[in-house]
Amino acid sequence: MPPPPPESTADPVEELRDERPWESLAEMLEAGDAAGAARELADLSVEAQRLAMAHLSADSQATLVESLQPEDAAEVLEVLPEAQAVDILEDLPSETAADILEVLRGSTGSDFLREMDAEDSAAILAELDDPEEAEELRTRSGYEWDTAGGLMRSRLASFPETATVGDVLADLGENAETYADMDVQYVYVTGTEGVLRGVLRLRDLVMAPRPSPVSRVMIADPVRVKVSDDFESLRQLFDEKNYIGLPVVEEDGVLVGVITRQAVREATSEHQTEDFLHTQGILGGEELRSMPMAARCGRRLAWLGPNIILNLVAASVIAMYEDTLEAVIALAVFLPIVSDMSGCSGNQAVAVSIRELTLGLIRPTEYLRIVWKEGILGVVNGAVLGLLLGTIAGLWKDNVYLGLVVGGALCLNTILSVLLGGMVPLFLKRLKVDPALASGPILTTCTDMCGFFLVLNLASSVLSKLT
Amino acid sequence: MPPPPPESTADPVEELRDERPWESLAEMLEAGDAAGAARELADLSVEAQRLAMAHLSADSQATLVESLQPEDAAEVLEVLPEAQAVDILEDLPSETAADILEVLRGSTGSDFLREMDAEDSAAILAELDDPEEAEELRTRSGYEWDTAGGLMRSRLASFPETATVGDVLADLGENAETYADMDVQYVYVTGTEGVLRGVLRLRDLVMAPRPSPVSRVMIADPVRVKVSDDFESLRQLFDEKNYIGLPVVEEDGVLVGVITRQAVREATSEHQTEDFLHTQGILGGEELRSMPMAARCGRRLAWLGPNIILNLVAASVIAMYEDTLEAVIALAVFLPIVSDMSGCSGNQAVAVSIRELTLGLIRPTEYLRIVWKEGILGVVNGAVLGLLLGTIAGLWKDNVYLGLVVGGALCLNTILSVLLGGMVPLFLKRLKVDPALASGPILTTCTDMCGFFLVLNLASSVLSKLT
Repeated sequence: MPPPPPESTADPVEELRDERPWESLAEMLEAGDAAGAARELADLSVEAQRLAMAHLSADSQATLVESLQPEDAAEVLEVLPEAQAVDILEDLPSETAADILEVLRGSTGSDFLREMDAEDSAAILAELDDPEEAEELRTRSGYEWDTAGGLMRSRLASFPETATVGDVLADLGENAETYADMDVQYVYVTGTEGVLRGVLRLRDLVMAPRPSPVSRVMIADPVRVKVSDDFESLRQLFDEKNYIGLPVVEEDGVLVGVITRQAVREATSEHQTEDFLHTQGILGGEELRSMPMAARCGRRLAWLGPNIILNLVAASVIAMYEDTLEAVIALAVFLPIVSDMSGCSGNQAVAVSIRELTLGLIRPTEYLRIVWKEGILGVVNGAVLGLLLGTIAGLWKDNVYLGLVVGGALCLNTILSVLLGGMVPLFLKRLKVDPALASGPILTTCTDMCGFFLVLNLASSVLSKLT
Repeated sequence: MPPPPPESTADPVEELRDERPWESLAEMLEAGDAAGAARELADLSVEAQRLAMAHLSADSQATLVESLQPEDAAEVLEVLPEAQAVDILEDLPSETAADILEVLRGSTGSDFLREMDAEDSAAILAELDDPEEAEELRTRSGYEWDTAGGLMRSRLASFPETATVGDVLADLGENAETYADMDVQYVYVTGTEGVLRGVLRLRDLVMAPRPSPVSRVMIADPVRVKVSDDFESLRQLFDEKNYIGLPVVEEDGVLVGVITRQAVREATSEHQTEDFLHTQGILGGEELRSMPMAARCGRRLAWLGPNIILNLVAASVIAMYEDTLEAVIALAVFLPIVSDMSGCSGNQAVAVSIRELTLGLIRPTEYLRIVWKEGILGVVNGAVLGLLLGTIAGLWKDNVYLGLVVGGALCLNTILSVLLGGMVPLFLKRLKVDPALASGPILTTCTDMCGFFLVLNLASSVLSKLT
């Protein structure tokens, strides 16, 4: 905890609400004073920096960051949404981007590189002064973001097996500043070629005699993860035991980083956010309104395009029953209601299935459990909703058969859609397709088709009673 | 990090996939061997415990937990989803629940009590042996879960101002076991009546002369939060500076707990999950399929009921144009397509607005920004989708006017729904209504109504050309 700033008692949030920090920045940029604008940006609070950058054009963002000292630029980029920071870096001259990359903290540099176009990232890596650092960044940005290699941080305190407790304590004391922002909880011990040998707890170190070799105090052959371990296995490992952090090794056992419980938690949270955006049809990473219009339109259309086809397929059922519809035009009022309501019921089942899969409460093979648990619920809710809508329809046209047709169709379609909604995510999970992305459109198409079919088919079977 | 178990190299996850741990438990319970089943449950891995409990009936869950030693029962409850743990505790005799509550770690006890029926929680609190602990739990469960009071943990290391560095170090050494699971990063210094005076960094402690009073080493008058501080202000405070943890005080300045960055992050993640479930129509906390059927049906109907009314309102527009529809029955095919597609476009805008609000990239008053940023996008995407659907409609019935009506309606309705979808979350945020919960139904109703109206109104204005 840094010493408290004296102004901490004022409420920075309230003050901020009244400002529009991007306006003066935009004015200064317009007047050609990029350096002045950059200085002003650097002095803003994190909250105001983020808000200001979200309101400036892509060009202005790049100009501002280019005019900042690399250290200040790195600080600004670190607080922005990742997609935005990546866009800015791509817009900068590669030398400037490389200078900033060198001072980014932890794994942020490789996180950014991973998201860039291959061409841009190669150009930036070529400008790095230190070829070893470039090589490390290249390797790390090659791991998927949610694997151990992508989530680890590589700054860690490690000592050779031959060191003594006294050596380690002395080094920790002398380099306290270096270790300060590493949140050191454990110290690692390595053998020849950097192969992981053991873990030292600070508490054990402090209580051990100074001249004893660390190999006597360390926990030998500790639990470790491989750089290639995927998110699912990491989540389960940290679930299983109360680890704070685990060492990450390459295939040959060389220690290359540390993965913390917090990093795994953050990845979980990012997966959930992704799920949320995917269910709503936002693809290809997060969208921000500061992004270029063409990219935003294109990404949204990528989801809407296939959807319109699916909608046409579903609606073609209506076209097959034009005669029935012409005879009982009131049915047209209930077609969208039945399909929408079943869609809502089905989406509830989808959400519960996705959640149970994420929490590990159900396995992707348990279709029977869904049939049982959603089936009964579908019968109850279908009956309630069908009775409600059927009564309204019957009373409106004073025709009990219309009520039976509409109510019956909604009831049957509700049962069908909760069953389907419950099972589709499990099925997609087994196919290794993202359930959040595909469940909605599949479900909606099916329930629309079935809803239209049920209403119109039931109606045509009692057509004489309806007209 | 606990010493690594030797079996850690085997893959527990793969092994688990082949088992159905709940089956043998259910059999033993059926045979009346609750004690044996409880022993078996206690020996399962966390992953298997969670899966097993999710598959047992509410009665079996309660019987099992009742048969466990309080310590084991606490461990099991801690790994279950909160809603499930709360249901189990409510089903237990209050004495048993109280015994378990006494050994739950950290703030878990008050988290559970907060979610219980007032009657159940009062009965359990009355059974606690230690009236002081009961009083503390009662107070803490009274805070909202996402305030500082609800998120803090109350176990912390604090010392009076009069202590010396030597005293503190000696106490930390002697009680290492007690402090072990507290993840002590800072030590707090309190004055009379427990009022917070300062914070000590362990690093400063270690380097200070032993006889000096802690008041000389501590950071005096540190940043603190009040128990009543809400989630939004906590998130912004931790955003603003790189705090690891902050002391929590009551109104009168008495130190009552510590809130960590991690607790705030977890709350953020829980808010996001809640958003996801709310957008999909799952209300009243998380639903698990192991919950009683009546509760699950009721909660889902609570969302579906109002929705059916909104659907009726929207569809009533169709009823007003029955003549037009009767004349051009093909329109019935396009009504659901236009309303569904606009709904999808609008939901994308909703998702981006909710996300930008959460990240602090937009303020709830910036309607003009939405008009600008979503308006252009709506014109582009509306034109693309309208052209596509209009062409299909025109070709199908070989009538260019049908194409113009359908395409034009989709184009206009897309513009309208992205504007509305972008603004509704901001508007609801200002009204302090949860945007995730209410945006979808409001948007869908409006876009359905407008979609139906546009198609049918445009059609009736060129009716002679369509027939």
